[in-house]
Amino acid sequence: MEHGASSVPAALPYYVAFSQLLGLTVVAVTGAWLGLYRGGIAWEGSLQFNVHPLCMVIGMIFLQGDALLVYRVFRKEAKRTTKILHGLLHVAALIIALVGLVAVFDYHKKKGYADLYSLHGWCGITVFILYLVQWLMGFSFFLFPGASFSLRSRYRPQHIFFGAAIFLLSVGTALLGLKEALLFKLGTKYSTFEPEGILANVLGLLLVCFGVVVLYILAQADWKRPSQAEEQALSMDFKTLTEGDSPSPQ
Amino acid sequence: MEHGASSVPAALPYYVAFSQLLGLTVVAVTGAWLGLYRGGIAWEGSLQFNVHPLCMVIGMIFLQGDALLVYRVFRKEAKRTTKILHGLLHVAALIIALVGLVAVFDYHKKKGYADLYSLHGWCGITVFILYLVQWLMGFSFFLFPGASFSLRSRYRPQHIFFGAAIFLLSVGTALLGLKEALLFKLGTKYSTFEPEGILANVLGLLLVCFGVVVLYILAQADWKRPSQAEEQALSMDFKTLTEGDSPSPQ
Repeated sequence: MEHGASSVPAALPYYVAFSQLLGLTVVAVTGAWLGLYRGGIAWEGSLQFNVHPLCMVIGMIFLQGDALLVYRVFRKEAKRTTKILHGLLHVAALIIALVGLVAVFDYHKKKGYADLYSLHGWCGITVFILYLVQWLMGFSFFLFPGASFSLRSRYRPQHIFFGAAIFLLSVGTALLGLKEALLFKLGTKYSTFEPEGILANVLGLLLVCFGVVVLYILAQADWKRPSQAEEQALSMDFKTLTEGDSPSPQ
Repeated sequence: MEHGASSVPAALPYYVAFSQLLGLTVVAVTGAWLGLYRGGIAWEGSLQFNVHPLCMVIGMIFLQGDALLVYRVFRKEAKRTTKILHGLLHVAALIIALVGLVAVFDYHKKKGYADLYSLHGWCGITVFILYLVQWLMGFSFFLFPGASFSLRSRYRPQHIFFGAAIFLLSVGTALLGLKEALLFKLGTKYSTFEPEGILANVLGLLLVCFGVVVLYILAQADWKRPSQAEEQALSMDFKTLTEGDSPSPQ
């Protein structure tokens, strides 16, 4: 192990700060786009649609991304505390995303539009169901006390891979939605470099950058959360005996 | 190390076979979409545009994805041979993608359309430039004999991360392009579940699945190519002396 439980890799805080700057900028630019070019946000009329992109970006992009970073940021806190924070961020993301989903289905219903006909809709509903399944699996394996040590160790790599994959799919789905919103409104005017088109393209690139930076932080092997001393000791001595909390870094 | 140089992880061949089935299906469905609904392919008139999606899918998705899998598939061959195959697949991908790019710029020019105004265009040109830079960096560090052992070891994780990131961005860019092509042609008819819309949505999901399966194969730590015995020996004995080929698994 390169870093003890007490040391923080030198570059990590800068990358985390940069990811937060990018994430907040994404949320702000989404708000600016909806405010400047789409008439703002309300739970009635055509403005109800605008709740959808804002909630999905806050929930499925920003909060979901931050939930993945929790184990890199909170390195010295007890594993259990960090886990609960990870779970709570995902609950917040899920609730906000649900509001965003209700907004678009309700808007479609009132306007008599079809649901889930586009690639954005197909990807979106798939990703949301996967996210829900991932949340329930994560809860039952890691927060619910019943799962055994060996079950947890076998499921952990799958949870980490599909967590990252679902996050990346969320970013991709957001790009498809943004593109759809642009093309429906601008049509061929999109090719005349309208200010709205340029702002939305910038928002798309910011979304991509947020996704890449979060993935970069997750992918650095020596930025992973170190095992705590007491967890390591447990791991060495009781690996095959205990069925308790998992000792390995996450 | 869990696997010796001679053993292949039991599940790996099935995942690789599945990835190839998906990749070939993606290419076939792209061809079917262009043939059935877009009049086929030619280097003249409006059919010239159709060269673009087909070439980009073959080059930037299928061949690029396969180039990333080379180190997982060829586990017993000499490191040098595997490297050259990795480089050659990327050269083929690059040339085919270039043909696809020339097709769309030439088509835009003949029709008097603007270039690079959309999010698809912005993402696409960014990804292509990153891919070119990645290729040149990879060539100078790993195939050109000048780079030192320590330089190679430090660059390797970056090369692997950005290789995967560029591949995923290519998949995302393809989805955006597909969506653009659909919305420009179908417009509001997209919401009536036109056969072309459904076929293209299926193609989009297949592209996503190919991306996820390739990423899954790359992400499994114990599916990585094992160090060859002679490379390991070199690594142990001459690590600080030699400036030759890199001994660690890739």
